[in-house]
Amino acid sequence: MMRSDGRKPENLRSLSIKTGVNLYAEGSVLVEMGNTKVLCTASVEEKVPPFLKDQGKGWVTAEYGMLPRSTHERNSREAAKGKQSGRTQEIQRLIGRSLRSVVDTKKMGVRTITIDCDVLQADGGTRTASISGGFVAMCLAFSELHKRGLMPEWPVREYLAAVSVGVVEGEPVLDLCYTEDSGAETDMNLVMTESGHFVEIQGTAEETPFSRQTLDTLLGLGEKGIREIIVCQKSVFSFPGGSHS
Amino acid sequence: MMRSDGRKPENLRSLSIKTGVNLYAEGSVLVEMGNTKVLCTASVEEKVPPFLKDQGKGWVTAEYGMLPRSTHERNSREAAKGKQSGRTQEIQRLIGRSLRSVVDTKKMGVRTITIDCDVLQADGGTRTASISGGFVAMCLAFSELHKRGLMPEWPVREYLAAVSVGVVEGEPVLDLCYTEDSGAETDMNLVMTESGHFVEIQGTAEETPFSRQTLDTLLGLGEKGIREIIVCQKSVFSFPGGSHS
Amino acid sequence: MMRSDGRKPENLRSLSIKTGVNLYAEGSVLVEMGNTKVLCTASVEEKVPPFLKDQGKGWVTAEYGMLPRSTHERNSREAAKGKQSGRTQEIQRLIGRSLRSVVDTKKMGVRTITIDCDVLQADGGTRTASISGGFVAMCLAFSELHKRGLMPEWPVREYLAAVSVGVVEGEPVLDLCYTEDSGAETDMNLVMTESGHFVEIQGTAEETPFSRQTLDTLLGLGEKGIREIIVCQKSVFSFPGGSHS
Amino acid sequence: MMRSDGRKPENLRSLSIKTGVNLYAEGSVLVEMGNTKVLCTASVEEKVPPFLKDQGKGWVTAEYGMLPRSTHERNSREAAKGKQSGRTQEIQRLIGRSLRSVVDTKKMGVRTITIDCDVLQADGGTRTASISGGFVAMCLAFSELHKRGLMPEWPVREYLAAVSVGVVEGEPVLDLCYTEDSGAETDMNLVMTESGHFVEIQGTAEETPFSRQTLDTLLGLGEKGIREIIVCQKSVFSFPGGSHS
Amino acid sequence: MMRSDGRKPENLRSLSIKTGVNLYAEGSVLVEMGNTKVLCTASVEEKVPPFLKDQGKGWVTAEYGMLPRSTHERNSREAAKGKQSGRTQEIQRLIGRSLRSVVDTKKMGVRTITIDCDVLQADGGTRTASISGGFVAMCLAFSELHKRGLMPEWPVREYLAAVSVGVVEGEPVLDLCYTEDSGAETDMNLVMTESGHFVEIQGTAEETPFSRQTLDTLLGLGEKGIREIIVCQKSVFSFPGGSHS
Amino acid sequence: MMRSDGRKPENLRSLSIKTGVNLYAEGSVLVEMGNTKVLCTASVEEKVPPFLKDQGKGWVTAEYGMLPRSTHERNSREAAKGKQSGRTQEIQRLIGRSLRSVVDTKKMGVRTITIDCDVLQADGGTRTASISGGFVAMCLAFSELHKRGLMPEWPVREYLAAVSVGVVEGEPVLDLCYTEDSGAETDMNLVMTESGHFVEIQGTAEETPFSRQTLDTLLGLGEKGIREIIVCQKSVFSFPGGSHS
Repeated sequence: MMRSDGRKPENLRSLSIKTGVNLYAEGSVLVEMGNTKVLCTASVEEKVPPFLKDQGKGWVTAEYGMLPRSTHERNSREAAKGKQSGRTQEIQRLIGRSLRSVVDTKKMGVRTITIDCDVLQADGGTRTASISGGFVAMCLAFSELHKRGLMPEWPVREYLAAVSVGVVEGEPVLDLCYTEDSGAETDMNLVMTESGHFVEIQGTAEETPFSRQTLDTLLGLGEKGIREIIVCQKSVFSFPGGSHS
Repeated sequence: MMRSDGRKPENLRSLSIKTGVNLYAEGSVLVEMGNTKVLCTASVEEKVPPFLKDQGKGWVTAEYGMLPRSTHERNSREAAKGKQSGRTQEIQRLIGRSLRSVVDTKKMGVRTITIDCDVLQADGGTRTASISGGFVAMCLAFSELHKRGLMPEWPVREYLAAVSVGVVEGEPVLDLCYTEDSGAETDMNLVMTESGHFVEIQGTAEETPFSRQTLDTLLGLGEKGIREIIVCQKSVFSFPGGSHS
Repeated sequence: MMRSDGRKPENLRSLSIKTGVNLYAEGSVLVEMGNTKVLCTASVEEKVPPFLKDQGKGWVTAEYGMLPRSTHERNSREAAKGKQSGRTQEIQRLIGRSLRSVVDTKKMGVRTITIDCDVLQADGGTRTASISGGFVAMCLAFSELHKRGLMPEWPVREYLAAVSVGVVEGEPVLDLCYTEDSGAETDMNLVMTESGHFVEIQGTAEETPFSRQTLDTLLGLGEKGIREIIVCQKSVFSFPGGSHS
Repeated sequence: MMRSDGRKPENLRSLSIKTGVNLYAEGSVLVEMGNTKVLCTASVEEKVPPFLKDQGKGWVTAEYGMLPRSTHERNSREAAKGKQSGRTQEIQRLIGRSLRSVVDTKKMGVRTITIDCDVLQADGGTRTASISGGFVAMCLAFSELHKRGLMPEWPVREYLAAVSVGVVEGEPVLDLCYTEDSGAETDMNLVMTESGHFVEIQGTAEETPFSRQTLDTLLGLGEKGIREIIVCQKSVFSFPGGSHS
Repeated sequence: MMRSDGRKPENLRSLSIKTGVNLYAEGSVLVEMGNTKVLCTASVEEKVPPFLKDQGKGWVTAEYGMLPRSTHERNSREAAKGKQSGRTQEIQRLIGRSLRSVVDTKKMGVRTITIDCDVLQADGGTRTASISGGFVAMCLAFSELHKRGLMPEWPVREYLAAVSVGVVEGEPVLDLCYTEDSGAETDMNLVMTESGHFVEIQGTAEETPFSRQTLDTLLGLGEKGIREIIVCQKSVFSFPGGSHS
Repeated sequence: MMRSDGRKPENLRSLSIKTGVNLYAEGSVLVEMGNTKVLCTASVEEKVPPFLKDQGKGWVTAEYGMLPRSTHERNSREAAKGKQSGRTQEIQRLIGRSLRSVVDTKKMGVRTITIDCDVLQADGGTRTASISGGFVAMCLAFSELHKRGLMPEWPVREYLAAVSVGVVEGEPVLDLCYTEDSGAETDMNLVMTESGHFVEIQGTAEETPFSRQTLDTLLGLGEKGIREIIVCQKSVFSFPGGSHS
């Protein structure tokens, strides 16, 4: 089977992670997966939310947004509608939860890192690109704090990335573009660590419930894709020496 | 290992599905799983949302809410705060999507069924109880339409239920109560059909990413629990004769 | 005249007050008047609103909500609409004001009791049922505090209940059901104490203004009904010994 | 007993109703009761709300607002806070309901009259002044339609006015100013027609429940005050000849 | 050229500034320019917004609103719509900024003056009338503080007023009424001080961009109008002796 | 005088306008003025707002937003706060009004062009950069319609651009960066056409009102800057042959 853009079922789209794309943010990344482009910035604030008061811990959180014309048809601006959609809130909760899973919040100090993921152009997989790119932006901000001596111990336990997999026209494929995604029978987002452990599995049968065997194939494809994305992350950011067992 | 309420790891809490609990709704159910109690009503309206206009299809959607004192500590009322939380929206999208996965929306006719799931008392697993109970409420409403001759063909393809699984103190367990859930290392919600196919898998590592082997164990526990819940559903509602292959 | 449900003009519907219906709330009641069912919980918080700061007094407040399908036709969920209707706010202000009229807020201590009245099924008279049931839920919560030695003096001055009266097809009647209420020429809600004093009179001529003589008849009917409701309240909750003159 | 402003218990404050105070509105009135000043405008629109579609009837509705510095201390502007308080909504529902009680909505034609009651200065009794003044503004707008031949039959059945009564320092008094109102044991708003029938009775015991005898005294005082207000209304507006039996 | 109301191009409408129109406000003014009527109140609060904390300065701010029937056709009430329009916010920012430009916020003390400008009747020029009237209301409030010895030094540097100018049917004119404004090719609001310096210039070409020469003519007309308004302001309020160089 | 970034008072920052930066939008531009970067997209919809119904005209409108970390310190996301600030609304009204001033809305056909201006990085002058860039994005969208034969006549009358000028440390300067802007005594935004006519003048004295002579100097600087920006606009987009006199 040949996919609409000529890829094989087990191939990622071309991937690029560009750092230092914002003058002010403590960490910033422009991540591109095919035509999907997401700008991720990490902002450090020396305070934590009320529920963490007096616990000696930090917090990592995320916000997500799509520019109105990041999509084929223009979408209403959420700020103009006066509220974030359920989809937006679901995605930003997922991004924050995923990033926190590999961070030792005691080591990061009593501060908050906010990852803003703004989609400049959308062609499927914006939430997984946000996680893969947001991870690097977060690391860059931590690295800045580490270099300035404000955070003695490196708090990130291991690399982490995300990718989508799905069943399109009966065939399991990796990294769906928008056309594939909107017609997929099954759609799954995977977040994994470098050591091959799962952080999130979110699989949905849009119309046809899927079998255990299909699930196994999808998990295999996802693991392959995530390994490749982590290679790319490492090419632009390495953990500080000695901090990563 | 003995669990806090004396159950074995592979046991469900006591389950009860009571029908006909609301005088007005086309279908209604009070589902209890241990101390979790959810009131599910199914309401039929003879119209569809704008995006389905002129397609000859119906729609199934869900709303979810918790009474302010359904929880240990009182929570603010969402109507008073003026908006639904991200968690609420995420859950009601999940319930609606799950129920639609087993419904032939062409057969149900050009109408909307709204499943309201209101949590009277919460002790973990409210979203999965809402799906298992909401499924029966939906079937009761369809049955009503079917009996009145307003919907000639039965539109539900097969039984469907949901359950939570997770890793608590290092051990995989089925159907977590609130105490277990809040301390779980991994938390997963599964929605499956009677034929053993997956509709939703939503697994989250709260702190410790989990291995493929743990995933397999959890999927097994979940499948067992869902089979038992479907037995209970069948004891209060049977598909109309001949309509279910 | 025989009423639609066979009652005489001066009869209440069948009344039931069931206590202990919620595992967590300090006080809880399920009140049923005919087909109207309201779940009332009383929640204690050890703080008071800002306007009572440093006054050595407590506060009793109420919130009210209707489940979407508590009514003949499904109503939109207020949390989804993003605001409470004027009707909802009017009712919850009435409930709170009524309950406070018999409470010595100095004796109750510097704490807040919030009465949540959630209508599971509505057939007229939901606001008066909320007051009659909420009164008992409040007393149960006070009793809990009293028993634990946290509130030495009993703060409730006397029993209090509420009922609706109205003119239906020219005839004054007690405790209107929904059908009666929606066609009533005059509709009145009365809140009274055991000693026969008025706490609230809210009478409205829907179309035909009413005479002084009609008013007198309605007040008489209401007083009779309230006495009967207080008998029922006393059967499930007695003031602690010696605290009630 | 002498009241704070030298009045006797059964006296109204000085009352003034000035018409034609707005260049654009179909009817307009500035009503002053002592230091309370309310600007009432009546606006005609040739359409009705959706729930009256195809019924051949009109609608009368009201909106109410207080200018931020109409009160002793400045209050936040409701438009800036983004919502109307429960009190505001309760009052505007009361005004609309009261005015509709004397209008034959079939005779008024398929149109909406909106009465805007904006409080320029508040010293107690703003809701009752809004009703008494809004009634005249409404009549002026109907008169305008009547004169232009757009509404052949006069739709207002009789004069209607409102006043507050209450118990202050143990004594029943008429037409409470702010100082009296904020310290009153009982507070009651009455809306009555010229023929002496009740349209609304809203009585509240702020702290001390009140007896039947007190109620009777208050009703007598209110009736006296309303008769005097109607005399003042008639001095500025007479029903068109022959239309009022 | 004769204007619709008989004025010459360089004439203001009849102008009236009446003080002491509100019983409670520290300063109050009813300003009328032709048929435009704006009620301006100045309210003093002994606190400042968070961004001025610990700076030893005061703050002047403004809010603006139109009564629903201040206009030819009734407009929706902003409090009912739940938000202030962009136009409202733009105007209140302009009023506040203009007034602050002539106030020494150190001399005024650590307090906030809020100027509420509520349009009772609108016939063009409501924002400039609000500034000219709001200036006097602010001075009255400062004068009150000064007299009571609460603010030793007079904080207002010089008189300030505002007026509109524009190009109507090709001709530059001063102080546009609504009919002129809605058909103007160019519309400009000017805020100036007594010494002839500019505080705000807001010029907009509605359809036809305008030349430098037209701009010069408009600025001349505006300056003339503002001088005349300041004469009127001085007739109702003089700076305290010796405080104004 | 040397400015903080080494420019002379009459110099623009380095300017770049890059087209075709979005895969889906009918017109798209990334405009950079020094460190200020704004992404402008033009989206065509074949419908107009209700107020233009049946008038045979089109509409041009704009929306504006800043990414949360486009600024030195992170700002809250407007979508999360649930409303757009007054500043945002004021800016998007300015952009829309400015662009419409050079468009013949009859020639553009019955359609709407929405210009989204999203600030990726802010260093002063974001609203003027949005107008200069948005103008090109709009032209590109019109050009697309023109080429496809969907809009026979070219609707844009002439080139248009915008720039800021101001008084910094007593000296008039062109094109203020953020540091200059935040300390400026006077701040002015100018929108002009290629023929040297004014579309908008918005000048504000932040603390010190400014003289007529200063105004004249600022207008001269602004005209010079706008001419240079139009040269840059022409280098990336030329009006179709014969359409521009």
